[in-house]
Amino acid sequence: MISKERIKKIRALHQKKQRELTQEMLVEGTKSCLEVWNSSLEIVSTYVTQDWIDKMDGKLPINIDYEIISQREMGQISALSTPPEVLSVVKIPQYNAAQFDSQQPILVLDAIRDPGNLGTIIRSADWFGIRQIFCSEDCVEFSNPKVIQATMGSFCRVKIVYGDIAELIQNQADRATYGMFLEGKLLREVNFEKNSLIIVGNESEGISKKVEQLIEYKVHIPTGSGAAGAESLNASVATGILLYELSTQQH
Amino acid sequence: MISKERIKKIRALHQKKQRELTQEMLVEGTKSCLEVWNSSLEIVSTYVTQDWIDKMDGKLPINIDYEIISQREMGQISALSTPPEVLSVVKIPQYNAAQFDSQQPILVLDAIRDPGNLGTIIRSADWFGIRQIFCSEDCVEFSNPKVIQATMGSFCRVKIVYGDIAELIQNQADRATYGMFLEGKLLREVNFEKNSLIIVGNESEGISKKVEQLIEYKVHIPTGSGAAGAESLNASVATGILLYELSTQQH
Repeated sequence: MISKERIKKIRALHQKKQRELTQEMLVEGTKSCLEVWNSSLEIVSTYVTQDWIDKMDGKLPINIDYEIISQREMGQISALSTPPEVLSVVKIPQYNAAQFDSQQPILVLDAIRDPGNLGTIIRSADWFGIRQIFCSEDCVEFSNPKVIQATMGSFCRVKIVYGDIAELIQNQADRATYGMFLEGKLLREVNFEKNSLIIVGNESEGISKKVEQLIEYKVHIPTGSGAAGAESLNASVATGILLYELSTQQH
Repeated sequence: MISKERIKKIRALHQKKQRELTQEMLVEGTKSCLEVWNSSLEIVSTYVTQDWIDKMDGKLPINIDYEIISQREMGQISALSTPPEVLSVVKIPQYNAAQFDSQQPILVLDAIRDPGNLGTIIRSADWFGIRQIFCSEDCVEFSNPKVIQATMGSFCRVKIVYGDIAELIQNQADRATYGMFLEGKLLREVNFEKNSLIIVGNESEGISKKVEQLIEYKVHIPTGSGAAGAESLNASVATGILLYELSTQQH
């Protein structure tokens, strides 16, 4: 049993404004919760259904407080269309660009708006060992429940910082800057520096003009030989291909 | 003005069952409609808002019948959370495996369930010039409105056939078969035959056991050197990387 007051407070975390105010976010589902419980992130509260706790032999795999609530109550606090069996409220991790490893690449996202795309990009970055992502202020917030869901737990392992891309480029002047465009050097022929800044743009507009003029190397993914008509790749697919190429070079 | 009867009929196309019965599907939004009008697909009916037709200088860019309806009516017939300004009802194109070009690769999808993933895969295939996709019967239908939306018009240029993958492999015995797994040969080191069958599995289960035993070459995308924890890539990202590699080899 969970009070109406508490349900209201948790539901409020579906909204960006309330997440910013409290610096708390929702993490939903077994996979994501297991990841976050095993991370260094701060857990505020955890809710599980009786069915789920029965499946887990009556206890959580980690020693934290939790409350058993009904499936109906879970539906009231969840932000997902299919409510999960387990949900944690978690402190949003705070990083800044000064914490970035100067020897490692930074993936830079310019106005990625779709939560599924951002979450998928964080997941790919984690897979390819890219642990630092810099987002322009007009990217969707990574604390959005749909982003968290699409990361499949990878948000626990990647430092994500929001800020001004032009400032980042100026402050990180020793790093070579590469940007994804619809023209430029073929991706396969680019030799990335180890500590590159790699910039990917918005789903429909690409990289903004302001950022474009600060980029040294334009890179593109060519269409196939039989192609005739597709105008672009999905932003998260294009980023995945870019990270694959970067990772393959550095193996 | 559109009759209640007609609204009901079009709304019914949100459901798989009704699409199968009528062999009709919805195509929504300017980008997708422009693509479908310029394709050889059969248009059944088209609905536009007054605002949209004003922007188009009072006429469609192609000579087909259309009706002007209100934004509210558009909201009633649309399957999208944000209703479009233009919508066409279109005959679902029918292809069969006998129409596949024997010299070109076939992308084979084993139980891809997420509409966004299937749509994104079709879009990537189109970008990389892969024009033939074979889906197991338990893949989501490509006529699903969310699939159509995610393809960004690419559904007009790719032949998509549903059927039994084991039968396909047996009927196409002259083609080498490659499957994406979490282990196997490094993707970069695989030399794909020109007319390969390339198989990608379900979002959480991967390739089914039944299909796995028919595959000659297991292929995988390695994690990056600094990676520690991500269990897999998103299915549409993994497929995009695979098609990129295939396409780069054949350039």
